[in-house]
Amino acid sequence: MFKAIVRADTLQATLDSVGVLVDECKIHLDEDGLDIRAVDPANVGMVDLSLPASAFESYEADGGLIGVNLVRLQDIAGMASSDQLVHLELDEATRKLRISIDGLEYTLALIDPESIREEPDLPELDLPADIVIEGRDIDRAVTAADMVSDHIELGVDDEEEHFYVKAQGDTDDVHLELGPEDLIDLVAGPASSLFSLDYLEDMNKAIPKDAEVTLELGEEFPVKLHFQIAEGEGSVTYMLAPRIQN
Amino acid sequence: MFKAIVRADTLQATLDSVGVLVDECKIHLDEDGLDIRAVDPANVGMVDLSLPASAFESYEADGGLIGVNLVRLQDIAGMASSDQLVHLELDEATRKLRISIDGLEYTLALIDPESIREEPDLPELDLPADIVIEGRDIDRAVTAADMVSDHIELGVDDEEEHFYVKAQGDTDDVHLELGPEDLIDLVAGPASSLFSLDYLEDMNKAIPKDAEVTLELGEEFPVKLHFQIAEGEGSVTYMLAPRIQN
Amino acid sequence: MFKAIVRADTLQATLDSVGVLVDECKIHLDEDGLDIRAVDPANVGMVDLSLPASAFESYEADGGLIGVNLVRLQDIAGMASSDQLVHLELDEATRKLRISIDGLEYTLALIDPESIREEPDLPELDLPADIVIEGRDIDRAVTAADMVSDHIELGVDDEEEHFYVKAQGDTDDVHLELGPEDLIDLVAGPASSLFSLDYLEDMNKAIPKDAEVTLELGEEFPVKLHFQIAEGEGSVTYMLAPRIQN
Repeated sequence: MFKAIVRADTLQATLDSVGVLVDECKIHLDEDGLDIRAVDPANVGMVDLSLPASAFESYEADGGLIGVNLVRLQDIAGMASSDQLVHLELDEATRKLRISIDGLEYTLALIDPESIREEPDLPELDLPADIVIEGRDIDRAVTAADMVSDHIELGVDDEEEHFYVKAQGDTDDVHLELGPEDLIDLVAGPASSLFSLDYLEDMNKAIPKDAEVTLELGEEFPVKLHFQIAEGEGSVTYMLAPRIQN
Repeated sequence: MFKAIVRADTLQATLDSVGVLVDECKIHLDEDGLDIRAVDPANVGMVDLSLPASAFESYEADGGLIGVNLVRLQDIAGMASSDQLVHLELDEATRKLRISIDGLEYTLALIDPESIREEPDLPELDLPADIVIEGRDIDRAVTAADMVSDHIELGVDDEEEHFYVKAQGDTDDVHLELGPEDLIDLVAGPASSLFSLDYLEDMNKAIPKDAEVTLELGEEFPVKLHFQIAEGEGSVTYMLAPRIQN
Repeated sequence: MFKAIVRADTLQATLDSVGVLVDECKIHLDEDGLDIRAVDPANVGMVDLSLPASAFESYEADGGLIGVNLVRLQDIAGMASSDQLVHLELDEATRKLRISIDGLEYTLALIDPESIREEPDLPELDLPADIVIEGRDIDRAVTAADMVSDHIELGVDDEEEHFYVKAQGDTDDVHLELGPEDLIDLVAGPASSLFSLDYLEDMNKAIPKDAEVTLELGEEFPVKLHFQIAEGEGSVTYMLAPRIQN
């Protein structure tokens, strides 16, 4: 069974965080909250999201697993204004999710979880550099890099103690250096990896501009981006595989 | 002769109410105000609009009939800010309408009324159910229904005393029930009819979100929607033919 | 050498004023400020822009000439919010322009000025009529004229002492008359010329709605439009060649 009430903006942030990578996903409806893990079709970007029961106005579940069409669910949640309450209830018999918003009831057919791409395991990585940065700085770097290139280098200058972003185009370059005074926090270490901008742009769309984002970086290793949603109650981790450096 | 001054928002609401159904229309310039009746090319949706002389800042007419290109007239009226005054004057000799907004004069060639689709007679129907509802609730129902289907059922549960909206898609459904406490008024009676969403969506665009809309419904009968424009001075009635229920 | 700091809105207004006519331009980096002159590919519209050193937060230059991709430079400047400071520095060795905004550094490859269309000489014309008008009135006239035609007549009625705008379409006409009381200033004189609306619409995009615009007009002569940017520090002059009257 699953029955919950949640603010529309919390639901929207949850769905958007996953929806930038995949169109369908499995949702674990555990006793203490819901969990989503998904990987994009090319196996390059992953997301791991937890929204604990405390992020809901009310929450009851006993460990089910459902498959949902995220695009459809985003459309439905998008009809509510941010502070409206969304009621969710699973009808086990028909395998449908009943979503109601101020009297309006939407019955959503669920997808067989077996038919959805298998959930990834986000590997535990002990990465040498940690950068805590504002969402708006990621946005600036990604937007500027996109003007000149389709990939972006993220790294840390271990000696100078700064985080850097570089993008090299055919004629123009973009470069951003942020020292400890520009960052919320920095644990310097040897780190430099190249990433596809397409994925970072998608992830960037879901990162609130005022979020504190923790980046974990290494030398030609995946990057992990952590941030919180739902006023700190929920957490999202993205992992993005590196591209081979030229 | 015809010579009038009207606030831009009043003129815009008038033109938009008719413009969602047709691109050209006849306008009756009677002594006591103007009247427009029109039906869409498929003969499914009709509109009957009255804007009395009292809705104008000044109004003089002696019973003429003009044909206008609504799209063009909407563009012209759209250039004015809502509280600007629009001056309208018919030049009988050239059959042109002179529209002036703060010194800017637009001369619009009229269309021969004979060349415009004949005006419909909106039948007097004595429908058993009356629902008075806010425009924003119609908007919610129509927007949600459109996610799952291309038609919508409107009805009244005579015993339970509530108004309902249903849309059934291939996999998903939308359902809205509004009781007397959710409505401005309800006169229950046996009513249930199916309508094309395309038409209701168009009509919905012209219905102000804060308008009180009176729906008259029956069993497989047309629906009538009445609402007021121009701060209660003008009135609009839409009539929409039902679809055959499966 | 060239090194300057400028508010983003000043830079944006500068680039937009030229960018409505051309995609690339030469910029003269004189000791006392920068100058841009450009003409569109069809040789119909010209722009002459001066932004003196006083419009910058800081400015140092010794008379260089650079060629820039305006579209690219507009994109970069557009990333800054209007009151952010943009740092510009020319790297003479690499012929690149370094643009930095709050730590984000963009290196823009310059274009060989020789490869850019030659700069026009804006002829000194002693035109008989001067009209000083608000930018928003030019906007209204151009927007309305565009509904009916692709050209526009600008003129002055020497006897009645008013400025007029006329556009004649196949069926509809637009007409605007502004007397001394509607204008900021008027020096009447014999003037009437026909212009392409495409060009005036482009120029209109760059004219602030609240700008005082001085029009200089003659009989089948080019029109000159002057206005100020950067809070009166910078000045822009457009010149537009007339079309042959029918």
